Amino acid sequence: MESMTFVLFGATGDLAKRKIFPALYNLYVDQKLPQSISIIGLGRRDLSHSDFQEKVKDSILDFSRRLEHEAANMGEFLDYFRYSTLDVNREEDYQSLLELVRQREKELHLEENRMFYLSVAPEFFETIALNIKNSGLGQTNGWKRLIIEKPFGHDLQSARELNEKLSRAFEEEEIYRIDHYLGKPMVQNLEALSFANPILQSLWNKEHIANVQITASETVGVEKRAGYYDQAGAIRDMVQNHMLQILMMTAMAKPKTINAAEIRHEKRKVMESLRPLKEKEVKNDIVRGQYISGEVNGQKVQSYLEEPGVSPFSNTDTFVAARLWIDHPSWTEVPFYIRTGKRMKEKSTRIVIEFKNKENQKYKNNQMNPNLLIIEINPNENISLQLNSKNPLNNGKITPIRIDFSNNQISLGVPEAYERLIYDAFNGDSTFFAHWKEVELSWEWVQPILHVFENNLVPLHKYQSGSYGPAASDSLLLDNGFKWWPDERLQESKVKVHN
Amino acid sequence: MESMTFVLFGATGDLAKRKIFPALYNLYVDQKLPQSISIIGLGRRDLSHSDFQEKVKDSILDFSRRLEHEAANMGEFLDYFRYSTLDVNREEDYQSLLELVRQREKELHLEENRMFYLSVAPEFFETIALNIKNSGLGQTNGWKRLIIEKPFGHDLQSARELNEKLSRAFEEEEIYRIDHYLGKPMVQNLEALSFANPILQSLWNKEHIANVQITASETVGVEKRAGYYDQAGAIRDMVQNHMLQILMMTAMAKPKTINAAEIRHEKRKVMESLRPLKEKEVKNDIVRGQYISGEVNGQKVQSYLEEPGVSPFSNTDTFVAARLWIDHPSWTEVPFYIRTGKRMKEKSTRIVIEFKNKENQKYKNNQMNPNLLIIEINPNENISLQLNSKNPLNNGKITPIRIDFSNNQISLGVPEAYERLIYDAFNGDSTFFAHWKEVELSWEWVQPILHVFENNLVPLHKYQSGSYGPAASDSLLLDNGFKWWPDERLQESKVKVHN
Repeated sequence: MESMTFVLFGATGDLAKRKIFPALYNLYVDQKLPQSISIIGLGRRDLSHSDFQEKVKDSILDFSRRLEHEAANMGEFLDYFRYSTLDVNREEDYQSLLELVRQREKELHLEENRMFYLSVAPEFFETIALNIKNSGLGQTNGWKRLIIEKPFGHDLQSARELNEKLSRAFEEEEIYRIDHYLGKPMVQNLEALSFANPILQSLWNKEHIANVQITASETVGVEKRAGYYDQAGAIRDMVQNHMLQILMMTAMAKPKTINAAEIRHEKRKVMESLRPLKEKEVKNDIVRGQYISGEVNGQKVQSYLEEPGVSPFSNTDTFVAARLWIDHPSWTEVPFYIRTGKRMKEKSTRIVIEFKNKENQKYKNNQMNPNLLIIEINPNENISLQLNSKNPLNNGKITPIRIDFSNNQISLGVPEAYERLIYDAFNGDSTFFAHWKEVELSWEWVQPILHVFENNLVPLHKYQSGSYGPAASDSLLLDNGFKWWPDERLQESKVKVHN
Repeated sequence: MESMTFVLFGATGDLAKRKIFPALYNLYVDQKLPQSISIIGLGRRDLSHSDFQEKVKDSILDFSRRLEHEAANMGEFLDYFRYSTLDVNREEDYQSLLELVRQREKELHLEENRMFYLSVAPEFFETIALNIKNSGLGQTNGWKRLIIEKPFGHDLQSARELNEKLSRAFEEEEIYRIDHYLGKPMVQNLEALSFANPILQSLWNKEHIANVQITASETVGVEKRAGYYDQAGAIRDMVQNHMLQILMMTAMAKPKTINAAEIRHEKRKVMESLRPLKEKEVKNDIVRGQYISGEVNGQKVQSYLEEPGVSPFSNTDTFVAARLWIDHPSWTEVPFYIRTGKRMKEKSTRIVIEFKNKENQKYKNNQMNPNLLIIEINPNENISLQLNSKNPLNNGKITPIRIDFSNNQISLGVPEAYERLIYDAFNGDSTFFAHWKEVELSWEWVQPILHVFENNLVPLHKYQSGSYGPAASDSLLLDNGFKWWPDERLQESKVKVHN
């Protein structure tokens, strides 16, 4: 791996502490960092290099997946780190930064490869990018790359403006837009599952698939993010980025060769085929919800409107469900359902592929359950297949069984999303980052929903905390004769078979 | 369930003790016996009713899957049993039996439904059947049924003769030929797997299946059965009956309705389509083996020729592997491989369905493992599917994973083969018994192999005890570019993923 400088804006922030430093450390332990690397943290506060290194150390001890005793001895690693004070608006601070970058490049004999990681609020993206360009930080003999966190814009127009401004300082292929769902092992595994398995490949189409259900449910409420969330809602926080990215990964056709460019090409085709919404379709196909009080995991919790920082008259969506159609010959008449919400009954990100029962066949007068492929992304990683089998404990009656591959046992050893993504960026592999065209097309699709929500043209369904969301979300599927899987009856039968 | 009399020939024998009495008891506990039933045991020895009841009790305490304390209190059950001394050749003994049967029918107000279970050596089948007829035991106002154990004939001619003689006393639909492999839950589950699961149904054909591998391997040697086995060999002991029955169950097309008659019809079509063998094909497609000394499960064991009761010049096959072709449009060019042997490395009865890799595709330059559906029948019951997945511990390299549904945990509660089969016979359900046409067609197919073996026209490959059989068995598959699954490399990778 090429030697480089890693410049982290927002180095005293929460994301750096919880995710980025531990990720860098784990890459270091796994010998996945460049042989020579300079890491420079930036923040508004004045900190000495050694103060900063102490902060890095604390963050690793608190948040690394490595055991504490493994993480204790980290002198060499901490020595990569330097600190520079920076007010994003002060040009002089960029000059001091440039001096420090160059000094370290000289000391460590680094190539002029510079990676800029913007772990800061989105309103600073533009200013920082421009200053990187103007200060000379971006003029290198090597490569330069920009990693940015979401959100990328607040709507279609602001996203386009932001992109236009970033593109003055960075080329598209230099920009790595993090969508940390794309760093999750099971999301990265989707392409292998569908393309490296002939039997799944032959089933992965409208001939065999009845519908696809993508769920990302959380049990937490808005927490301390009301300032951002009350402006964004689930539609911006989850649907425009994560949910549509998972949809693209699930529905894309097999690329001619498996590489970043071809995968992006196929993902883009999915977004281009997504049937656009007009006001009428938004009313039919989109469900908006907001949680009221209730009980989650045995704890009483308050309603969204009572959360600190939320306007008591807020119409913000904490739940969105949608029915999508991909107008492409591969997916004719196969509905894709997505739903995401806060304060739901369970924490789960999963994809359920429900297969067709072509002849609507019965088996000896038993109505059969459909075959399901269930891909659990979070918090467990699992692939399971629901088949119908004779139950030897029940006179051979046909009952659904699950065949499972569970990754649970190895989760300690598995790199986290940030490790994978930072590692990929180090290597210039952009497969699992969001391309501008994907972002733009997602905003285009979402834009009519934003309009309808903002103008209150659809009901805001209140749903009890600890539920599966408003009943209207079930109706979306019931319209087509379907239901959300898995259901609770099945969980019971699973338990029965295993005990 | 109708009231009935159950007459057991060979009631002092080993099978009665180990399998039949425990099966009857377990059916009793599960309330699957008729409300009113008379059970009459027959044997050459003189025994009082109560001596016989004691024997039944001991057998249950020793061999029932019920816990001892559950089995302790069995007075009502034992009271069903009576004993009558019988020499199969003495007509008077059948008269005494008839009297006892009638007396109990009267006492218990039973309908004249009589089931005769022949748990005796095959040379007595004919005599007993004839005497049942001549004595008047077979003249009933209700139904009569005959259950017989294998072997059904020693070759095609003797099987036909036996059938002709049985048919003088019983109609075909009154004869229940036990093949206890058909009583195993996973064999009974084959029809549900392939017909009650749309995705498996759509994959269950030559378009998607590359080959089918049926293995029944034992670790034991000939044990105390040399007298029978040295005359029979693996070809008669395993292939003609069990292996071909599993083949029929695997390859049969979906019946119009799932019932005994339609399933038998489809099984028969498989046997009728099985490409007949001539001497040349036997040489090419059949492998004959015999074990020499070696080590099994860490124990040194002697060669077949050293086993007590085996002729030191015996050419008897203790291993047979075969390549079969089903000349039916559904299975064109799909080889079916079977192998069975004693003193093999592992005890396992399983079906492996290897799916085609249509484009012989690679995934990012990795040669992929094929997708496999593995149905384990014995000693574990399991369904697993081998897929290719990214390995998160190995930089996302594609490795095979297994997704499993294991029945192990419930095996204590699962009825044994004999329970299922006796229960089915009580109910007149012949789905999982061998029909005469199946038996006859099996012998027809096997007959040329018997000829070639008897005349020593193919090599007798010696194989080491504790191995997977002779190398020639691997060559059968290698000819077509295949190998026996699963292989040991895969077992290792499975362990790795789970630890």
